[in-house]
Amino acid sequence: MSLIVQKFGGSSVANADRVRNVARIVADTYRAGNDVVVVVSAQGDTTDDLIAKAAEITAKAPRREMDVLLSAGEQISVALLSMALGELGCPAVSLLGWQAGFQTSSSYGSARIKNISAERLRVELGRKNICVVAGFQGICKYDDVTTLGRGGSDTSAVALAAALRADRCQIFTDVEGVYTADPRKLPGARKLQEITYDEMLELATLGAQVLNNRSVEMAKKYHVELEVLSSLARKPGTIVKEVTTMEKMLVRGVTKDADTARISVIGVPDVPGVAFKLFSRLAAKNINVDIILQSVGRDGTKDISFTVGRSNARESVEILQAMDILDGLQVVADTAVAKISVVGAGMETHPGTASQMFEALFSADINIQMISTSEIKISVLIDETSADRAVAAVHRAFFPEG
Amino acid sequence: MSLIVQKFGGSSVANADRVRNVARIVADTYRAGNDVVVVVSAQGDTTDDLIAKAAEITAKAPRREMDVLLSAGEQISVALLSMALGELGCPAVSLLGWQAGFQTSSSYGSARIKNISAERLRVELGRKNICVVAGFQGICKYDDVTTLGRGGSDTSAVALAAALRADRCQIFTDVEGVYTADPRKLPGARKLQEITYDEMLELATLGAQVLNNRSVEMAKKYHVELEVLSSLARKPGTIVKEVTTMEKMLVRGVTKDADTARISVIGVPDVPGVAFKLFSRLAAKNINVDIILQSVGRDGTKDISFTVGRSNARESVEILQAMDILDGLQVVADTAVAKISVVGAGMETHPGTASQMFEALFSADINIQMISTSEIKISVLIDETSADRAVAAVHRAFFPEG
Repeated sequence: MSLIVQKFGGSSVANADRVRNVARIVADTYRAGNDVVVVVSAQGDTTDDLIAKAAEITAKAPRREMDVLLSAGEQISVALLSMALGELGCPAVSLLGWQAGFQTSSSYGSARIKNISAERLRVELGRKNICVVAGFQGICKYDDVTTLGRGGSDTSAVALAAALRADRCQIFTDVEGVYTADPRKLPGARKLQEITYDEMLELATLGAQVLNNRSVEMAKKYHVELEVLSSLARKPGTIVKEVTTMEKMLVRGVTKDADTARISVIGVPDVPGVAFKLFSRLAAKNINVDIILQSVGRDGTKDISFTVGRSNARESVEILQAMDILDGLQVVADTAVAKISVVGAGMETHPGTASQMFEALFSADINIQMISTSEIKISVLIDETSADRAVAAVHRAFFPEG
Repeated sequence: MSLIVQKFGGSSVANADRVRNVARIVADTYRAGNDVVVVVSAQGDTTDDLIAKAAEITAKAPRREMDVLLSAGEQISVALLSMALGELGCPAVSLLGWQAGFQTSSSYGSARIKNISAERLRVELGRKNICVVAGFQGICKYDDVTTLGRGGSDTSAVALAAALRADRCQIFTDVEGVYTADPRKLPGARKLQEITYDEMLELATLGAQVLNNRSVEMAKKYHVELEVLSSLARKPGTIVKEVTTMEKMLVRGVTKDADTARISVIGVPDVPGVAFKLFSRLAAKNINVDIILQSVGRDGTKDISFTVGRSNARESVEILQAMDILDGLQVVADTAVAKISVVGAGMETHPGTASQMFEALFSADINIQMISTSEIKISVLIDETSADRAVAAVHRAFFPEG
């Protein structure tokens, strides 16, 4: 007998039929002899509907009251799923954030889980009840309702799995697992059986959008074994864990991130501290810089290029143009770029990975503008129009068809 | 400075405009220097929508989960009203049932308030915050969410007013107060300035439907001064209190109750215990009997007539027909009847009230089938088709126009 935490997102419980489908998955897990804790998000559009109600009243809703409002969404879905489980003959109790013991910081709208007092959960599990827990919500030290912000229900599930020392935390979603590339774009993409936390973190950051980063970080910290799988297809998904054993792949996945822009400053005087001042000014404005490239220019000057999120491009240019030390210099932004990355824990011991990637791009006649590497990933910046072709070419190099 | 509890029903907060209107009423009360606690119901059709969601999942929803589901409705409205108050520059905090300290019995769906731990409310009032409390809900000793059942928000408001020793509890509704007759049916009906708890209880029972009986009983028990008034018209309503002083009216109101049926058993043998057995059998089936009339029939037998709620008429006949002691006797039901009542604490010292009522009915050529009197009311059963005419005639007798 195992203790399993299962998490279902808003689209998985969007209507009565979907709720019944989720109830069948949970019931099967319970009837196989497991203790089951289910974490559910608000139904489909409920959160958007509630946000619209608030917008009708005020343009600047107090965050404390937004949390009270939005947490009603999960309250509705836990009650409905508990009813659906009862209909299948399975004993189930719904638990709201405060009932499940979620103690959080008091930063309304983006609270952090500080502790889970799992006494009530243990009592209900001891009675052989399925616990249906409202994701995304908790209470702070003032006994106020809080919400965890974007991706909060994934984090709720992982935190519960950690607190209860669950054997596995299953994150049900609308894809069948983690793929070597986006399967909607590249039919040859393969589903991975296993992946490490670090690889998953890189893939999430790079735009794979399967799991929320906070939840993966928490899973890594507390050694919670995750499984990403589909609530519609009944088959094994992808396991996320510390060390993978089953597959000997160098590269786990190829991703494209189009939310990027390249900023270049041309002809920067070669005196100490210029780069430091430039990037600390951007940091002060909360602009995250990703890849940085510094090249020796003509006449003893240098060119500095870096990438930022596309929505920060214009502001970045304005900030740099206002800096005295860059006075009169040319600052240009290029938003028609994309970042292509390969991720895999195996590559740090295989120096050939980078050249294999570059060769694939060269063969496809795609020019590389910038390069960035870490222990488990290699990213290149290229022209956006070539991005999908680049993913296909690189994917083919590492995962030959057939 | 006073402490005032204000309660607004679902139609008063049905949409953003209505919420803003309620916020203005509350803000005016607060800015006049009062401490204000507001109790709100779920918006308009929210409760019905949630019930429909549950019905899609199951025909027999567990009551515990129904309470979790339905209490989301008030959660939404307290958040929205708090936002609207913030928009008017008034500091407001929403409080759910458990936050406001509503401790109830654990009979889900029809819980009774056992205690209110008002510490949090007192802290918030001390900070000069308006407290916006979710009506209808609380928590039981198992830390489960409970709801109070029909009319629960009125009861929440009165219980809060009692716990906080509020100076007044204002119940805002869609009528301007308590009238001498239904103002939608009888244009000559007058709004009462004051009425006693006992009179209000009789009027509520008799179908005036302004205030929930449980809340009036609680107000009487804890000496909470109530005011019934409109959330749309900004004018004084009707005060409900122990002793009225301002008006010297014998009769407070004339009501019609069409939810009644007359059952008659003809030719009952005149032996001891028959009536007792008959009514205890009905009581065992949870059928409430109202007016009872026993007349001496022919041949040493007697006729027994009584009234029940119209929906109980058929079952009552079947129960009586199945009784051995009534074997072979004729049991008839007449559902085309209505009960007309006059209510007033002054009438017990004025024996002329009954004859004045009967004379008015006689003059209007309306036949009286049954009569029942108590210290503060006189009820008669008449043909339903004459009911509205009877109300007008009796009202005219006690409240001459002009």
